[in-house]
Amino acid sequence: MARVSQAHLDARRRQILDGASVCFARNGFHATSMQDVLKEVDLSAGAVYRYFSGKEELIAAIVGEVLGEVRESFEEESRHIPPPAPDILVSSVLGRVHASREALTVDGQPAFPRLVIQVWTETLRNPELAAILSEGYGGVREAWARIVVAYQEAGMMRSDVSPDHVARTMIATVQGFLVQQSLFGPAPVEVLRDGLRALMSVSAPLSGA
Amino acid sequence: MARVSQAHLDARRRQILDGASVCFARNGFHATSMQDVLKEVDLSAGAVYRYFSGKEELIAAIVGEVLGEVRESFEEESRHIPPPAPDILVSSVLGRVHASREALTVDGQPAFPRLVIQVWTETLRNPELAAILSEGYGGVREAWARIVVAYQEAGMMRSDVSPDHVARTMIATVQGFLVQQSLFGPAPVEVLRDGLRALMSVSAPLSGA
Repeated sequence: MARVSQAHLDARRRQILDGASVCFARNGFHATSMQDVLKEVDLSAGAVYRYFSGKEELIAAIVGEVLGEVRESFEEESRHIPPPAPDILVSSVLGRVHASREALTVDGQPAFPRLVIQVWTETLRNPELAAILSEGYGGVREAWARIVVAYQEAGMMRSDVSPDHVARTMIATVQGFLVQQSLFGPAPVEVLRDGLRALMSVSAPLSGA
Repeated sequence: MARVSQAHLDARRRQILDGASVCFARNGFHATSMQDVLKEVDLSAGAVYRYFSGKEELIAAIVGEVLGEVRESFEEESRHIPPPAPDILVSSVLGRVHASREALTVDGQPAFPRLVIQVWTETLRNPELAAILSEGYGGVREAWARIVVAYQEAGMMRSDVSPDHVARTMIATVQGFLVQQSLFGPAPVEVLRDGLRALMSVSAPLSGA
């Protein structure tokens, strides 16, 4: 009985988070009301408020879930010695994050890239959300920096560059790729994988000074 | 007389575009009224409407100016044989675009990265702006792809990867770096330069198959 009940609670929570994600992706956080969320998930106010006190808790849960998933993926990868090369690593983690959300759509397009951009905009006027995002990204940056150190220790990458700078650059490629997907439509993760692979192949004696 | 007058017209136009950029960066396109812009630039409606018919023309001019500047910079660089390596190229173009806008601030922070994110969000609900942005990015992508072809022809980069995929990846690094600046505060362009430089140094025999 208790087990069935927990599964039911989890499924209900998932349903609410997914519905809220679609609402936020469609209209942004600010222009979405709790009424919109209730309508999207087709549940009563009582059923939803049992899980989340309001929009703030919803967005915090959504952001925390995505960034937690990304951080865990990178932490897992950092246990391989040496870790997979950046092209493989970025495309596999991004592919996984996309895949687990591909059922969520807005106007027939994946909701996830739109959701990400809407969250960024909201952080510009919402200090609480900015703090959540900053902490979440901090965790991803640290996990990435550990992978960079592993590359450097394995002799796979020049070691005179700050691991945090490399981490920020790697994260930037993914953030920018999400921007492009929301602006110009879906693109396979192989685009980014190939671009990173080509960048890894550059020999530029003149700039290495 | 005519010369003085043209200089005056140009300066006035610049003043209006800069004021509108600050307004859009602060509150977003949707929440900014023409009244807000008039107040920011401290000009009469008559003076402003002589140059721009409304918010749509203002944002189109701002976006067109930035992307035109970026495209021209890359076209200029593509005339060098071979072009500067990606780390140098990205940091010099981005540095230039930033430098020409550093006087524009919101709450004491550079307005430019905020403006960029606000524009992206607005394109999600504004098909006209989406079309302008898509065309502008198309030009930047083409200019970047020509540079990639030049790298490949000079033997500086593996030639089995689509130049457009590399172009998209290079643009993504800049887009993502702008996101990070608006979320976490200003960061020197050297962060991205160093990250790209480190990525260029990766040797990853296992992933090259």
